[in-house]
Amino acid sequence: MTQPGHLYGIGVGPGDPELMTLKAVRLLDRVAVVAYLGPEGGDSSARAIAAEFIPAGRTEIAIAMPMRPGREPVEIYDKAAGEIAAHLEDGRDVAVLCEGDPFFYGSFMYLHDRLGGRFPCTIVPGIASITACAAAAAVPLVRRDATLTVLPATLDDPSLEARLANADAAAIMKVGRHLARIRALLERLGRIEGAFYVERATRPDQRVRPLAQLAAPDAPYFSMILLPERSKS
Amino acid sequence: MTQPGHLYGIGVGPGDPELMTLKAVRLLDRVAVVAYLGPEGGDSSARAIAAEFIPAGRTEIAIAMPMRPGREPVEIYDKAAGEIAAHLEDGRDVAVLCEGDPFFYGSFMYLHDRLGGRFPCTIVPGIASITACAAAAAVPLVRRDATLTVLPATLDDPSLEARLANADAAAIMKVGRHLARIRALLERLGRIEGAFYVERATRPDQRVRPLAQLAAPDAPYFSMILLPERSKS
Ligand SMILES: C[S@@+](CC[C@H](N)C(=O)[O-])C[C@H]1O[C@@H](n2cnc3c(N)ncnc32)[C@H](O)[C@@H]1O
Ligand SMILES: C[S@@+](CC[C@H](N)C(=O)[O-])C[C@H]1O[C@@H](n2cnc3c(N)ncnc32)[C@H](O)[C@@H]1O
Repeated sequence: MTQPGHLYGIGVGPGDPELMTLKAVRLLDRVAVVAYLGPEGGDSSARAIAAEFIPAGRTEIAIAMPMRPGREPVEIYDKAAGEIAAHLEDGRDVAVLCEGDPFFYGSFMYLHDRLGGRFPCTIVPGIASITACAAAAAVPLVRRDATLTVLPATLDDPSLEARLANADAAAIMKVGRHLARIRALLERLGRIEGAFYVERATRPDQRVRPLAQLAAPDAPYFSMILLPERSKS
Repeated sequence: MTQPGHLYGIGVGPGDPELMTLKAVRLLDRVAVVAYLGPEGGDSSARAIAAEFIPAGRTEIAIAMPMRPGREPVEIYDKAAGEIAAHLEDGRDVAVLCEGDPFFYGSFMYLHDRLGGRFPCTIVPGIASITACAAAAAVPLVRRDATLTVLPATLDDPSLEARLANADAAAIMKVGRHLARIRALLERLGRIEGAFYVERATRPDQRVRPLAQLAAPDAPYFSMILLPERSKS
């Protein structure tokens, strides 16, 4: 019987290929199969980041995701997991590329749910967007005894408000079309001062602005709001 | 007049040198001066991680930290910042090595406070301990609309309890001598099931245990408790 292949969930970081780890680069050089998610009809951001490290001629599995928000497309993950499992059963190692870190709001988790228990599996952490955004904004995120709360902008105002009430530092992810609402909420809560808006951190078109100076009603997918810890010292 | 040198805050990741980024490795090859913090009389963990990438003959600044907990040792940071500033003023680039990520509970922030505004400065994000610990435990951290709260174990029970009450996923850092107390608190709050204890993630002596199975009263410095998101699906 063939020994099963090894499944790797590989974080490729926030955008700059130079923020990939040595381990990610080494593994990409030797796995037989490379898989990644991308929007239906568009390019995979994770694949674009790792492109220069994927040797020519590798088997690639592009998993196309419909861009409607809402429930996870169970059938798409089932089908992709099946394809990946077939390679693993035949003894081929498979690397799934993940933007940022695989276990930090990454869709790799849905493949891990389906395959992690069945095959030998290693997660290679990647630079997550929160630390990349803090670095881009040159804003220290959290120190000493302070807490950091990470919130998806998709939560409604009462949920966000309750969680911000006892958060020292906070990061609001998935801003997108919620930008104007979040801005208004933070203004009302007196937390707009010191807040930063970071768009496409570490990419060539990176943008960093104090949130208070931002007029746009919405934001692209790769954007985040950072509320650095209020200085105590 | 000499052009001032560039200050780099370089995240070297959680322990495995292979989890350093390509950018960190490239910069270490070319800066003139390398600085790092370490416990008084002990080795610097950040320097040990990066050791193989520091060319021989570099000027090194070892910043010795007294291991008493409590207030930041202002004078030590002032003195180190002065030494680093002298190199930068003479036009030499300085890299400060930081365990994990520089802006995520990193002591580099105290040097950044003192030097960031005076010299050109770039932060190179590193793999933070939270994502490294989740990868080591093979436990997805946070997904979809869930929130992640990062808490230092140094907070007292009422503060921790209040913040855990509306946290979906949580990570408790700086466990050390607080282990028994935190364990008891999580037991009382009914949150011990599914919680993981991770010690020295990505290092040769890494240890991962379900928190419920852990009897020890205290933990080493490099340890963390992960409360993965309670499954909703
Ligand atoms: C589905 S989550 C994936 C997070 C990713 N796994 C990570 O570790 O950062 C997508 C969200 O991450 C944030 N994000 C990812 N990359 C980013 C970047 N380069 N700049 C700003 N925000 C980013 C945005 O808030 C975006 O909506
Ligand atoms: C002063 S903080 C520094 C955090 C670091 N800057 C980072 O990005 O992870 C030290 C705490 O980080 C956590 N930590 C750092 N490295 C770790 C590792 N390899 N395994 C487990 N916990 C770690 C522990 O909770 C430790 O008490």
